[in-house]
Amino acid sequence: MLPKLNVVPFVSVDNMMKLVLSIGVERFLSELAGYIEEDFRRWHLFDKTPRVASHSVDGVIELMPTSDGTTYGFKYVNGHPKNIREGRQTVTAFGVLADVGNGYPMLLTEMTILTALRTAATSALAARYLAPPGARTMAIIGNGAQAEFQALAFKAIAGVDRLRLYDIDPAATQKCLRNLEGFGFEITPCQSVEKAVEGAEIVTTVTADKQNATILTDNLVGRGVHINGVGGDCPGKTELHADILRRSEIFVEYTPQTRIEGEIQQLPNDHPVTELSDVIAGRALGRANEAQITLFDSVGFAVEDFSALRYVRAKLADTAFFEELDLLADPDEPRDLFGMLLRAA
Amino acid sequence: MLPKLNVVPFVSVDNMMKLVLSIGVERFLSELAGYIEEDFRRWHLFDKTPRVASHSVDGVIELMPTSDGTTYGFKYVNGHPKNIREGRQTVTAFGVLADVGNGYPMLLTEMTILTALRTAATSALAARYLAPPGARTMAIIGNGAQAEFQALAFKAIAGVDRLRLYDIDPAATQKCLRNLEGFGFEITPCQSVEKAVEGAEIVTTVTADKQNATILTDNLVGRGVHINGVGGDCPGKTELHADILRRSEIFVEYTPQTRIEGEIQQLPNDHPVTELSDVIAGRALGRANEAQITLFDSVGFAVEDFSALRYVRAKLADTAFFEELDLLADPDEPRDLFGMLLRAA
Repeated sequence: MLPKLNVVPFVSVDNMMKLVLSIGVERFLSELAGYIEEDFRRWHLFDKTPRVASHSVDGVIELMPTSDGTTYGFKYVNGHPKNIREGRQTVTAFGVLADVGNGYPMLLTEMTILTALRTAATSALAARYLAPPGARTMAIIGNGAQAEFQALAFKAIAGVDRLRLYDIDPAATQKCLRNLEGFGFEITPCQSVEKAVEGAEIVTTVTADKQNATILTDNLVGRGVHINGVGGDCPGKTELHADILRRSEIFVEYTPQTRIEGEIQQLPNDHPVTELSDVIAGRALGRANEAQITLFDSVGFAVEDFSALRYVRAKLADTAFFEELDLLADPDEPRDLFGMLLRAA
Repeated sequence: MLPKLNVVPFVSVDNMMKLVLSIGVERFLSELAGYIEEDFRRWHLFDKTPRVASHSVDGVIELMPTSDGTTYGFKYVNGHPKNIREGRQTVTAFGVLADVGNGYPMLLTEMTILTALRTAATSALAARYLAPPGARTMAIIGNGAQAEFQALAFKAIAGVDRLRLYDIDPAATQKCLRNLEGFGFEITPCQSVEKAVEGAEIVTTVTADKQNATILTDNLVGRGVHINGVGGDCPGKTELHADILRRSEIFVEYTPQTRIEGEIQQLPNDHPVTELSDVIAGRALGRANEAQITLFDSVGFAVEDFSALRYVRAKLADTAFFEELDLLADPDEPRDLFGMLLRAA
């Protein structure tokens, strides 16, 4: 049978959930982290364009393209903090993978859920290189949409099985407790950030505050801790006191982007940072000693989305969790586009 | 009923053809030209970012975003000349329209056919301001995928009803003749460019040659002619001899882009050109006199795609020519993305 050149596989939200559940959330996160690790190892191959942002009073719409020379991917993602008041998601996303050789899209997929998964997988992957060896306890400050994904990624990838949860809204912590029941965690809900970080070897900050905030003050961060800073991810949005940054060894995804969007926007532009890809490829040291405070200043980079698209496409081959979308005009004779239209009459 | 926040209307290739046929090709082109004209009139409102291109040996993949401050649109489009040898389209495209206020996509549509329509509608709209008054005869040099769309747009929008066709491949001309039968044209197939331009008041060049070529030499262009230069649309791809450009009054869509991609890449960077939007808004003169040679150096700009997306969305409201795509994750509680996943089990 001839391949149907007009058709692009499409993964709806419903099918993405079915795919994730059929694989299992933890296995999905582990395997996805494997794809991300692989792509971070060949970091130099990627066309690393900055995201193309269209800002407005209410938020931002971004296109995040990248390519490894063989495959091209991009993500459409918005960020609108006020959406939550209208019952909408702050962040929604979808993405496309395409063949560089002929420019034809080969996958269209929802990426709201997939972005949550790739963000968590990247955090946990970084922790495997940066957290103190044997770390089992993680504090999660901010128990919103990303919290459970972080928890499960750290369990599957970095060996965390004790959680200490805090949110300014206790209902968010309760939601987290409910959702994580049965996953094998020992969970302690906490009344304050101070309580949450007690005894935690890893501290994840993942709040949704739009402003520069100080979720974590300097005195709360003890020696040897690994900080997974997820919530500070755009200009004017940070979570950590600058003094913490000055005491930490800082690891980033892509330096030019993180200087603008990450916690380090609070520091001078020449403050030394290490790219995670260099650690993964063995070109730079991760955690150097027990006493060191390490910080993964995560903002999310196009290569991680690319890995996620690549992983989903590989997994789809064995499943029925996609539809065939009639997206590409395919006349019998390429020059006869108008004839195709006429014959449809 | 509550609006389904997860759903985005999707126009497949099949539905696009049904939509075009139900409206009628010529009416579609006329109405679309009206939308383009409207957007060119409010040109200053648009966020005019250059296209984001990812180049490879075989071709290019581009994202073309724009926004008028209320609505955001982008087109994904590839250009791979070698595709034609594999039975694929050289150019395929799809596009998205989104709400700037909340970042939610509100239309996903095929754009291979729609791009052909908007390119032709823009050409014919330009001709209404630039061609000699009363022009009825158009030569079309290059009878490929875009030719019939150009012919019908010029008929519907600019009053052309006599065509003189030429292509280096006579089969392409024959295809064009067949497809345009019954549309009310008087058509003369020609054996050479020289023959084709005889008596033509408008000359459309729309060849697919990838190289700098000289489709039209200086001696073939008489006084008073309007040239609609469509095929020269990327660096290294031009159709007209530079001497023609020097004798012409040149009109462009967006100067910075056309300097790189259009016929005027052959001229110094300060050669005077006029933007079509200025002519349409009455800020600049179109054709000044009978003798003038006018050239519309068309390369295709994001605003035209935006107009096309806007038009399709407006038309969809009254039809059934779309599907509902489950593209956006929509948990009952926005912070409970993980809970939505769990409950799908």
